[in-house]
Amino acid sequence: MKAEIISVGTEILLGEILDTNSQYLAARLPPLGIDVHYMSKVGDNLSRLAETIGRARERSDLVLITGGLGPTEDDLTRQAIALALGEEMYVDTETEQRLRAFFAARGFSFPERNIKQAMLIPSAQAIPNPRGTAPGWWVEKDGCIIVAMPGPPAELERMWEVEVAPRLARLAAGDVIVSRTLKTTGIGEGHLDEMVSPFLKSENPTVAVYAKPDGVHLRLTAKAPTQEAARGLIRPMEEELRRLLGDAVWGTDDDSLEGVIGAMLKQGGLTLATMESCTGGLLASVITDVPGSSAYFKGGYVAYTAQMKMSLGVSAELIEKHGTVSDEVAAEMARAARAQAEADIGVAVTGVAGPDELEGKPPGRMHIAVDARVPADRRGVSPQAISYTYYQGRAATKRRAVTTALALLRKALLAQNR
Amino acid sequence: MKAEIISVGTEILLGEILDTNSQYLAARLPPLGIDVHYMSKVGDNLSRLAETIGRARERSDLVLITGGLGPTEDDLTRQAIALALGEEMYVDTETEQRLRAFFAARGFSFPERNIKQAMLIPSAQAIPNPRGTAPGWWVEKDGCIIVAMPGPPAELERMWEVEVAPRLARLAAGDVIVSRTLKTTGIGEGHLDEMVSPFLKSENPTVAVYAKPDGVHLRLTAKAPTQEAARGLIRPMEEELRRLLGDAVWGTDDDSLEGVIGAMLKQGGLTLATMESCTGGLLASVITDVPGSSAYFKGGYVAYTAQMKMSLGVSAELIEKHGTVSDEVAAEMARAARAQAEADIGVAVTGVAGPDELEGKPPGRMHIAVDARVPADRRGVSPQAISYTYYQGRAATKRRAVTTALALLRKALLAQNR
Repeated sequence: MKAEIISVGTEILLGEILDTNSQYLAARLPPLGIDVHYMSKVGDNLSRLAETIGRARERSDLVLITGGLGPTEDDLTRQAIALALGEEMYVDTETEQRLRAFFAARGFSFPERNIKQAMLIPSAQAIPNPRGTAPGWWVEKDGCIIVAMPGPPAELERMWEVEVAPRLARLAAGDVIVSRTLKTTGIGEGHLDEMVSPFLKSENPTVAVYAKPDGVHLRLTAKAPTQEAARGLIRPMEEELRRLLGDAVWGTDDDSLEGVIGAMLKQGGLTLATMESCTGGLLASVITDVPGSSAYFKGGYVAYTAQMKMSLGVSAELIEKHGTVSDEVAAEMARAARAQAEADIGVAVTGVAGPDELEGKPPGRMHIAVDARVPADRRGVSPQAISYTYYQGRAATKRRAVTTALALLRKALLAQNR
Repeated sequence: MKAEIISVGTEILLGEILDTNSQYLAARLPPLGIDVHYMSKVGDNLSRLAETIGRARERSDLVLITGGLGPTEDDLTRQAIALALGEEMYVDTETEQRLRAFFAARGFSFPERNIKQAMLIPSAQAIPNPRGTAPGWWVEKDGCIIVAMPGPPAELERMWEVEVAPRLARLAAGDVIVSRTLKTTGIGEGHLDEMVSPFLKSENPTVAVYAKPDGVHLRLTAKAPTQEAARGLIRPMEEELRRLLGDAVWGTDDDSLEGVIGAMLKQGGLTLATMESCTGGLLASVITDVPGSSAYFKGGYVAYTAQMKMSLGVSAELIEKHGTVSDEVAAEMARAARAQAEADIGVAVTGVAGPDELEGKPPGRMHIAVDARVPADRRGVSPQAISYTYYQGRAATKRRAVTTALALLRKALLAQNR
């Protein structure tokens, strides 16, 4: 099945917004045996959009469109599909009722302009969108399927996963492409590339190395008649790579460091608390991005001032002697987090998020510590510490410190399972 | 000046990564008087990449390339430029020394494979990249400028802002396009679109309405011979829109809600503390994304368990009576945050981040409160509360709660300035 992705919006062409949707969709088609042949971006112009859709439905079996389903005057995707197919739009009363109920539930009056979101053409069915006001369109005509989905990613993603992907999976046929990602930490991109050099010559599966914010990823991609056969090609190579890389591999595919750590904590029956200054709550936030994290995360302290650090049990003397940005204070913060929240393990970050220096320390200076108190009858979780200087702007510096803290926490927890 | 943007990487074509860079660059060219005519994506294939660069330099005055400057075997941008221009690459000793020092400073050995990042051709100058190992290339030949920049956004953005944009600004000439964004909160997209309906017909400046995670944005875009003239076209329309929308407008352009609130707190000499459960530290993290936030942010508590809420002064009786997800507990948490951290204002969020329900409350249920204690000699900051149910997946639900809390905090602070 040949597919084509069209992103709609003048704001995309002008670079005013990022088009993340076309990549989101492109990534999800090969596993269904659907090949992407074209990706294009079109502005909010009725005739150009209709022309693009018309050309697409002639050369492709499947046309995926994102954006242009909003209530405003320049949202033209529905009209353009109707024009390209030569059909008339009408208001679907069932959709209209759902839409009015959506507004009422949020305590808003219904703007009459939103009525266009309740429109259909004879070849189209509405696709439910519980995350927003714009239903999608599933259109079948002359052997071509056109699927129009909303632009906001949260709405698109649910619609794709729950409504569109399962339906396409039943229709598509052909060689499928399956990928498997091994995620590593602790080895630089260049070194890893050297280590896995012989594997990079392989043709099916192929192996590629990518530097990512959470470490370096190895991506194995295989092509075969079935998903099972493709996975069978990947499996032996994954095993070889795992033997080569050992503990450096912390997860696969959609695994996140915080998810992997959550599973380790749950398995060990251990609880966690955080104390952070320069990362400002991001560490706790990332840890609690994991559904069910309340099973092991007791809580966190954003001790942004020396005063708050002291009120939580970090000694004034230590701060006086070493400064708040120091290994000593990081270790003490980890201990204090653990004690205050009555948790088994404490993680702490103190440093300089930038852009200005602090206490004579440069932006990007970080001190991170893990402290653990584990009952005597259990194999120990080993305390850990790390410090480094790497400044990449305030946001990226915070994010890197959080990733490093999570990698350090994983290292501390690895001892437990030996 | 006609420009063309090329994003390099097979992983982009396959949708394995998001190409944010082409939009980042596309957005920054019109203000310099540079028009983007083509945007393309090319895989890691030497001949296709060289061919694309060759075609680009024939039809465009400026070719901006991102990606493919890494140390691995499939990073081919340098080689492709050399091939397209018929020049030989050599190792630049100055760049090599800088690269070796970069690794040494981080305590890493130098992988010999990284030597390719020190290479140049006769027409190229290296562009410094203090955020990573890959210097850029500035190439001038036969009246065309080719600029190759690294793919990682933190590296690209610094290189663009500090090195490339200022240099291009001196070279470009032509009508410039200037945009101005007014950011609003409290009015839905459909309603705002109706309110500003007459303005949407304007041709220079144009006005467009966009729904964003932090509210609805109005974008005014003008074209004129100079930036000054373009701004002159925008100014009177901005004033009219501001009169129409009043307090709903909270900022412009690159303003963030957290930045605007930070400025209001500083101006009022007020300090802030947070207590949050379901947002897990994200509220504190966003507040501290603002450089200099330590001037007003005292600290935050991620009270993820009832036990921790009680240890911070939320009464067990209240939790027992209303449940942790309630208006009453939110108000008490805001008061406790303020008291514990000795701050003037406390903000609290309690709710259900999902995907599962909690205490019988559905995912997306949120209770948010602002509590203030302001000295009697000052005009008051007014306490505020809001509750709603809106589930869009765990991450978006956390983010929406944070934005709502910030909007509520702004509302509380607005009273102060009257």
